[in-house]
Amino acid sequence: MGGIPVDAVEALARLRALGLSAADAQTLCNHLEDAERRGKHTHGFARVPWLEAQALDPSARPVCLGTQDGVERWDGAGALGYLVLAAVCDRIVSTRPDGPRLVVAGRCFPTGVLGYWVRQLAGAGYVAVLTATSPRRLPHPDGGPPLTGTNPLAIGVPSSSGDPVVVDVSMGAVTHGDVLTGRAQAADLVPFGGEQAHKAFALAVGLELLVGALAGPESGAVLLAVRPEHDPVPAFRALAAGLRLPGDA
Amino acid sequence: MGGIPVDAVEALARLRALGLSAADAQTLCNHLEDAERRGKHTHGFARVPWLEAQALDPSARPVCLGTQDGVERWDGAGALGYLVLAAVCDRIVSTRPDGPRLVVAGRCFPTGVLGYWVRQLAGAGYVAVLTATSPRRLPHPDGGPPLTGTNPLAIGVPSSSGDPVVVDVSMGAVTHGDVLTGRAQAADLVPFGGEQAHKAFALAVGLELLVGALAGPESGAVLLAVRPEHDPVPAFRALAAGLRLPGDA
Repeated sequence: MGGIPVDAVEALARLRALGLSAADAQTLCNHLEDAERRGKHTHGFARVPWLEAQALDPSARPVCLGTQDGVERWDGAGALGYLVLAAVCDRIVSTRPDGPRLVVAGRCFPTGVLGYWVRQLAGAGYVAVLTATSPRRLPHPDGGPPLTGTNPLAIGVPSSSGDPVVVDVSMGAVTHGDVLTGRAQAADLVPFGGEQAHKAFALAVGLELLVGALAGPESGAVLLAVRPEHDPVPAFRALAAGLRLPGDA
Repeated sequence: MGGIPVDAVEALARLRALGLSAADAQTLCNHLEDAERRGKHTHGFARVPWLEAQALDPSARPVCLGTQDGVERWDGAGALGYLVLAAVCDRIVSTRPDGPRLVVAGRCFPTGVLGYWVRQLAGAGYVAVLTATSPRRLPHPDGGPPLTGTNPLAIGVPSSSGDPVVVDVSMGAVTHGDVLTGRAQAADLVPFGGEQAHKAFALAVGLELLVGALAGPESGAVLLAVRPEHDPVPAFRALAAGLRLPGDA
């Protein structure tokens, strides 16, 4: 186990050394490299030493349990959450459903940058909403034990004019990655919003219980992908008149 | 047009005087009364003089356009958004779908307290996620014109142990109702979160474009209702050990 890889070549080699297949290591490396490119360094190559310290079964494969009552269910089955969401997105992009697809993935952790996944789906023409839970790290604004994960919510909306708008908001004031890399203390990992932290906490609770009710007690993910009927992004970008929008470079 | 009604009897009479049917006036009055009971006074009887000042067609009825490609579409057709969401929820509660129901309602404004609607659905055994747009009032944190509505997100999760958890978070630092009643200035109506207002702004943008992409250019609503597979609320309440959770009295 070493420091943070200096580039994608080193990252890929070290992911392969964990026993991951060439395809899985490449999927994971692409994700980390995209995070680096977007300046989300705590979700980038810094995750390699973190992954090296986890107990993981490199041969585990996510399992699609099929569609029951209109919900497509997946079980991470020991695979990294990144690989679960990659398989979920690949299935949507390759099967191109006309109707909405609601996906519930149990045992799906860690899931990386959720914006990465909805951006893929937006690129394939789908509006996508994705949330995922993670170990409990956010306490109630009044104190007490950690009650929820940082529980990001990501929304991707495609656009006829090119770039989609991609929103990806964690409910934490800092990221767990900031804590891992020493940029923040664990005590800083509280709901964002300062005096209005009760709002971010409420969102974290709602998403925690939404995922829990659909995916079960372990960390999971819930995704909705649906084809748009309208194309609001060009007019919205025009109204914003050059102000930076979420997800823009 | 008078001041704020002193009670539900006066509120109901004044709503009837707008020309609303007895049933519609009662539906609306029940909503306002519930908001009063929960301390959300700016969403309560204070809305009666506001409604009296709007141009509204009291005979307008929301129209269910049917289900196309798995999406149930509604058009407010000039009816108050409250009455659209009441009809949407009534249809779910009366038809009790086994599979997930994704509802897109165009021209659906004003929608009141979104938590009210997901609480009804949670009471009928559904996990529900609801968002709705409203006139643009929130600017970018860097300034400029208003770009998004306050765009609340509500999540209701039923529980075998009784009370559901009901989350309802507006992305504004104050409500438009606060501005209407003089408790806040229009300039205070910015994304919540202070130094981290870019997070609430991003959520408002994502929800704005999600609704816009599905429901069209006028204010609309998007609802997902789905039966839970698990019951996470009792264990969550136990972990919270008496701390007040979102939506609790």
